[in-house]
Amino acid sequence: MFKILHKNGNARRGEFHTVHGVVQTPVFQNVGTLAAIKGAVSTEDLKEIGCQVELSNTYHLHLRPGDKIVHQMGGLHKFMNWDRPILTDSGGFQVFSLAGLRKITEEGVKFNSHIDGRHIFMGPEESMQIQSNLASTIAMAFDECIENPAPYEYVKNSVDRTTRWLERCKAEMSRLNTLDTTINKNQLLFGINQGGIFDDLRVEHMKRIAKLDLPGYAIGGLAVGESHEEMYHILDVVLPHAPEDRPRYLMGVGTPSNIIEAVARGVDFFDCVIASRNARHAFIFTKNGTMNLLNNKYETDPLPIDPECNCPACRNYSRAYIRHLFKAKEMLGMRLCVLHNLYFYNHLMEDIRLAIEEDRFEEFRRESVEKLAKRI
Amino acid sequence: MFKILHKNGNARRGEFHTVHGVVQTPVFQNVGTLAAIKGAVSTEDLKEIGCQVELSNTYHLHLRPGDKIVHQMGGLHKFMNWDRPILTDSGGFQVFSLAGLRKITEEGVKFNSHIDGRHIFMGPEESMQIQSNLASTIAMAFDECIENPAPYEYVKNSVDRTTRWLERCKAEMSRLNTLDTTINKNQLLFGINQGGIFDDLRVEHMKRIAKLDLPGYAIGGLAVGESHEEMYHILDVVLPHAPEDRPRYLMGVGTPSNIIEAVARGVDFFDCVIASRNARHAFIFTKNGTMNLLNNKYETDPLPIDPECNCPACRNYSRAYIRHLFKAKEMLGMRLCVLHNLYFYNHLMEDIRLAIEEDRFEEFRRESVEKLAKRI
Repeated sequence: MFKILHKNGNARRGEFHTVHGVVQTPVFQNVGTLAAIKGAVSTEDLKEIGCQVELSNTYHLHLRPGDKIVHQMGGLHKFMNWDRPILTDSGGFQVFSLAGLRKITEEGVKFNSHIDGRHIFMGPEESMQIQSNLASTIAMAFDECIENPAPYEYVKNSVDRTTRWLERCKAEMSRLNTLDTTINKNQLLFGINQGGIFDDLRVEHMKRIAKLDLPGYAIGGLAVGESHEEMYHILDVVLPHAPEDRPRYLMGVGTPSNIIEAVARGVDFFDCVIASRNARHAFIFTKNGTMNLLNNKYETDPLPIDPECNCPACRNYSRAYIRHLFKAKEMLGMRLCVLHNLYFYNHLMEDIRLAIEEDRFEEFRRESVEKLAKRI
Repeated sequence: MFKILHKNGNARRGEFHTVHGVVQTPVFQNVGTLAAIKGAVSTEDLKEIGCQVELSNTYHLHLRPGDKIVHQMGGLHKFMNWDRPILTDSGGFQVFSLAGLRKITEEGVKFNSHIDGRHIFMGPEESMQIQSNLASTIAMAFDECIENPAPYEYVKNSVDRTTRWLERCKAEMSRLNTLDTTINKNQLLFGINQGGIFDDLRVEHMKRIAKLDLPGYAIGGLAVGESHEEMYHILDVVLPHAPEDRPRYLMGVGTPSNIIEAVARGVDFFDCVIASRNARHAFIFTKNGTMNLLNNKYETDPLPIDPECNCPACRNYSRAYIRHLFKAKEMLGMRLCVLHNLYFYNHLMEDIRLAIEEDRFEEFRRESVEKLAKRI
């Protein structure tokens, strides 16, 4: 299902085959939490800007419009008119970051909806059932996303429970994939490695979940407060124990530089809200660094955001115009910047894939990491 | 410049030739107050949904980003990347509806900006200068848009002043069109008929401004509180005195039925914010009537907004999905509905033009007016 086409150092150029088509990796998944990309970007737009995988969220869709509604509408693909792969996050992260008054037991988590406060229970089986209703291509395991920092003993116990939850997720998904009412009977389950910033817990956990022979493995619980160096260190420590022949997904990461550094360590899948969230504040990514379009110096700048970029915003509109749109509170400003930033991320991945194919990834990394992080 | 291709009753099928291309009339102008269509619709989108004329606003653009900035950027066409005709409203209506603490003298109007309260003076010359900076295809005369109801004596004096202002507008535009720094030296000036709901004042004013031999004439001060019947009555009374060979523009009107009724009376140009404003509240226009997409009955409705419509929203997305977008506060919902409603308006005009050409406008009017106003 996952084929490594080429390796350059630890960086991997692969193909992930799914019922909804082939994903060229390394890949950046475009986040559409509520079955829509924030900033008025449609799935038609996603095709134009080179998105391969759309990512939606179990927790949010369970609340709105409800996964049963999505199931009734024929699943997420039909609901949002997207025929390429969709990954659904399990809800674990949101339960631990958004919901109120949560109580964790062996069974799962009791919590209150962040919308109307109503009581909800979600455990491994519930998360799998919801994701089966959503009929995504890839479902994520239900895990506890531990705060950082957290005491060693707490993390150890939590990781043990997350392993047991993963076994229940696997069993439940196998069962759901055989049911007549299931829309995507080929739904894939990715496991999630946890363990905070403790090397031994991370490694032990990865070894244990690797035995479950899942179609993919994620590194979770990073990008939640630790430093970039700590994150890279965890990758260095854990990835040698992840199955070589399965894709590795670094959840919620990151900046362009973070992504390149993680690819260098052997990561294949990424997702991050900063591409679209920053865009909605006129904060732009380009090959030569980041820029804030609200800056006065762009008031009469006739250039496109990035003269070398071929996105729908750069092909048609100037910095001065887009800045005006933000100042005038016109939604079009957000839309154009989101289109640009997502186009940039999707095409950055294309550049990364090409650099690996051509055995010059280290050179690419050296040249890019600093330049991308520059403020221009 | 204006060519009537065919008449069917009082309805006119025409062509208005400008330096930015030919406008097929009757036409609906798509409102982009601040050089952008609200709802994240771009000028690229406008082409796809059949917009012929974009309409922006002198008052708003004078405040943000400033007409001098737009001039420096090469005019509105270049600024917003739109190569078809643009009409700019004169600011008169906004000065009288949005701005605070206004004081009218023979010279013009002193008022406070609705954004930051700063003092601004605008008279005929200032309005023409701003519109010349914006470099629109058609500039509107600076007039006083009188509240309804208003006393006869007040209206009479105001209309007299508006006539004197129009003469000053004409002189100033002639002067501006000869300057080297002027971007569009072929800018056209439309006069505006006022007179409240007083037949004699309306007729007398139209006769006086007709003598100025302007390239187009608007009916202003309607759709500001009077009934539809009063509006139609004014049209019946005034239009026989408007020059036959010049386009007539009914400002700020209206519903699909209003437009058909006005076309029947000989109106050629329209604009109205309800197409996009209603869309932003999920209120939809279709050939079979209006619908509110927030209605519960659409929660699991797999049909497009209008199964017969070929707009970008109806081609790709269901009522259930778009309703979900509104409920989830996703901007994409507004965008899709604005695209639909503007597409609907632009194509309604196409149907009107065809019905006139084929000498069946009365039949079209009879069949359409009630159906369009129905709540479905």
